[in-house]
Amino acid sequence: MGALDEGHSCAELEKVVGLGCRERSFEEERETISIEDAVKILLHGLGEDVSREGLIKTPLRVAKALREGTRGYKQKVKDIVEGALFPEAGLDNVVGQAGGAGGLVVVRELNLFSYCESCLLPFQVKCHVGYVPSGKRVVGLSKLSRVADMFAKRLQEPKRLADEVCLALHHGIKPAGAAVMLQCLHIHFPNLESVFLKSNHKGWVKSLVCSGSGVFEDENAEAWSDFLSLLKFRGINVDRASMRNSSDQSWCPSQSHSGAKTSSKIEPVDQAMVTAVTSILRSLGENPLRKELVGTPARFVKWLMNFQNTNLEMKLSGFVFGRMDPVNTDGEASCKEKQMQSELEMPFWSQCEHHLLPFHGVVHIGYMGIEGLDPIGKSLLQSIVHFYGFKLQVQERLTRQIAETVTSFLGGDVIVVVEAAHTCMISRGIEKTGSSTATIAVLGRFATDSSVRALFLQNLPKPTVCEE
Amino acid sequence: MGALDEGHSCAELEKVVGLGCRERSFEEERETISIEDAVKILLHGLGEDVSREGLIKTPLRVAKALREGTRGYKQKVKDIVEGALFPEAGLDNVVGQAGGAGGLVVVRELNLFSYCESCLLPFQVKCHVGYVPSGKRVVGLSKLSRVADMFAKRLQEPKRLADEVCLALHHGIKPAGAAVMLQCLHIHFPNLESVFLKSNHKGWVKSLVCSGSGVFEDENAEAWSDFLSLLKFRGINVDRASMRNSSDQSWCPSQSHSGAKTSSKIEPVDQAMVTAVTSILRSLGENPLRKELVGTPARFVKWLMNFQNTNLEMKLSGFVFGRMDPVNTDGEASCKEKQMQSELEMPFWSQCEHHLLPFHGVVHIGYMGIEGLDPIGKSLLQSIVHFYGFKLQVQERLTRQIAETVTSFLGGDVIVVVEAAHTCMISRGIEKTGSSTATIAVLGRFATDSSVRALFLQNLPKPTVCEE
Repeated sequence: MGALDEGHSCAELEKVVGLGCRERSFEEERETISIEDAVKILLHGLGEDVSREGLIKTPLRVAKALREGTRGYKQKVKDIVEGALFPEAGLDNVVGQAGGAGGLVVVRELNLFSYCESCLLPFQVKCHVGYVPSGKRVVGLSKLSRVADMFAKRLQEPKRLADEVCLALHHGIKPAGAAVMLQCLHIHFPNLESVFLKSNHKGWVKSLVCSGSGVFEDENAEAWSDFLSLLKFRGINVDRASMRNSSDQSWCPSQSHSGAKTSSKIEPVDQAMVTAVTSILRSLGENPLRKELVGTPARFVKWLMNFQNTNLEMKLSGFVFGRMDPVNTDGEASCKEKQMQSELEMPFWSQCEHHLLPFHGVVHIGYMGIEGLDPIGKSLLQSIVHFYGFKLQVQERLTRQIAETVTSFLGGDVIVVVEAAHTCMISRGIEKTGSSTATIAVLGRFATDSSVRALFLQNLPKPTVCEE
Repeated sequence: MGALDEGHSCAELEKVVGLGCRERSFEEERETISIEDAVKILLHGLGEDVSREGLIKTPLRVAKALREGTRGYKQKVKDIVEGALFPEAGLDNVVGQAGGAGGLVVVRELNLFSYCESCLLPFQVKCHVGYVPSGKRVVGLSKLSRVADMFAKRLQEPKRLADEVCLALHHGIKPAGAAVMLQCLHIHFPNLESVFLKSNHKGWVKSLVCSGSGVFEDENAEAWSDFLSLLKFRGINVDRASMRNSSDQSWCPSQSHSGAKTSSKIEPVDQAMVTAVTSILRSLGENPLRKELVGTPARFVKWLMNFQNTNLEMKLSGFVFGRMDPVNTDGEASCKEKQMQSELEMPFWSQCEHHLLPFHGVVHIGYMGIEGLDPIGKSLLQSIVHFYGFKLQVQERLTRQIAETVTSFLGGDVIVVVEAAHTCMISRGIEKTGSSTATIAVLGRFATDSSVRALFLQNLPKPTVCEE
């Protein structure tokens, strides 16, 4: 119990205190670890090897993305708006409202994204916000965006998102009225079964919603006319009729899928996977028993199972190899008459194995041949594209695998271009709306002869994939 | 020296340790406080009252924006790329490169912003990145964006930015080659003196730069053709001639201004303000003696002084009041013949007082009158717009002040619409590229008669302010 002991006990205290007050890193937080565990169960359910190099960090990446993407649960409107309300006096002795003292303020085209509470996929939001100041106070313009973003960063549904943003602005700024209009865009994946049958699948579902308070409470109010005029002015055309769209029915494609009587009863959903998704919801701070969320885990799992490792293996392999031989022999003989042939704009749908988020777009294939493909050949190409799409993938591998596979019946001179929009580029931390990715694979003459390659690349059609 | 003392000393230690290891909040950090102090000196130099409500948090806001906007100084490529390189094997036994094993990977249209090292204003960057994988490894797509952003978040110049991103990718991914192309857009403020004379001022300076390594090192290499084809495919038209633009001369408009022989010698630059900006550079982790930065503080101060509080006070007040009376008497008499008149698309340039960042756009004014304005009247309106623009402002107040002032010679029925793009919406934390803000002020009939207001709003011209 001497000086040494005393020193010792203090050093120990220091250690304990030091540990206690060091902030736990994101990776060490309970919620992160819990989501990672759940994602491992999902990967396992997909028949994947969780320890393979491409997947080993996927659970952490998914946890990061989901927690970042739902950080709005932890934010408060008061913290955002407080200190950003500024006095702006106006004329008191004239009829009307001049600028800060009452005139309409509109911020347009805020690009946000949110997570669909019905299927857990991100959806894009183009947000337009307006308010009519009162009490001689205006709010910092960037706060309108921050408040909107705070509610977008939760599990949402368009109409509720609009209502929550509107209500929050109304309480936070105390304006004469607040208006919110959202143009939402939800990715619409085809069913694995239907994708081989329908070629005209529409890849997006749109929803236009709005919400108003105060002078905007009545949808026929003059204030809405002013608001819409200022949107139109920027090329955003919304007619008042479409504003009244009721959104009683869920917009999420996963809802209509689950209503179909086909495969849902045949393939029972893996309960361990459903439980894992339920635990993710809880880790994000949500209540899995909230009525809108009750069916979400099962829907998400059902959708995810589209990308099961072995789904299409059997269907395709026999087909491809069955057609391989004739071309190989044929091709060599009539080598000199070959010309560049191309099959363009074949849609594909895939799932990024790094983030468990969709990416999709079109595939263009060029090859040297005597004539173009017959309908069976075209359909085979499209099947190969789907075969490699409906898996956990990376775009580079998808490109390579398609190229390697088609050589077996298109010959050794092949170019494959994959054009894609990645949901992970929009909804992960970097939030790069509008960016797009292209990958190329070249074999044979397309690798060695740059003029042939250039001829193909320069004649690619402009993208038709609608993002609005 | 008993148990009590021992306990005491431990409690004290706990206090000290607790304080020591509690992370200093952003507001408490030395760099933040130092920037705040410098900003106060700048505001003072502008003749502003630092304690007025709109400005009281400006120093902190500016410090936050600048530190966030230059966070790239603290980031390392290794931390971003590490753990995001994935093995992707390709075919070994064929001629060519298939996808991940060698094919070109391009990510296009990454919207970034950077800070101009020459004038400290933010500039927009549309970034296109490509690389040809080698060593059977590909990098996670989002890392291309993160690496580019890391170098953008520094004080930059387009060509160096492109070179640094390219070099970093080359060392980080070890590809067969990396390619970077940047389309940069720098705001070009008119001089306070020239703005009253020239009506056709161009508000932007553009720069197209690129950088290549490995297979892209030679600007004539085939790899560049492939890269450009894939850009063209998305509507990004860059011809190879413009790629070779040398950027020896600085693109920053502030450089050409300082070269002019006019006012720079008449008005000496406030040395306290220059010293303040120099200290900001140091707080951001830069070396103010770096050759490209030596003239920056003086240039920034010179530009900032455009927005000095009292700059235009005298010039305008006599003018406006001199014209006030005739219209007032005239106007009342011929009330019934009045029709809606409008003056549209008057450019304005202003400085957001919350962030010390530019906002600019156009002003539309409507009023009831017998006939349109004569050239002197038009020029007076434009002068009023500039008068209220060239200050520290908020858009709502600008709108109101213009409305209140023009009533003195346009009569009591006035509508003013201000359409603006805010640099702070792009370059502050929220990074909302493409968003735009509209504010309205209505007086007299424009406030009470919604049909007159609607008539004006619905006929506003589409914006001509170029953002590309």
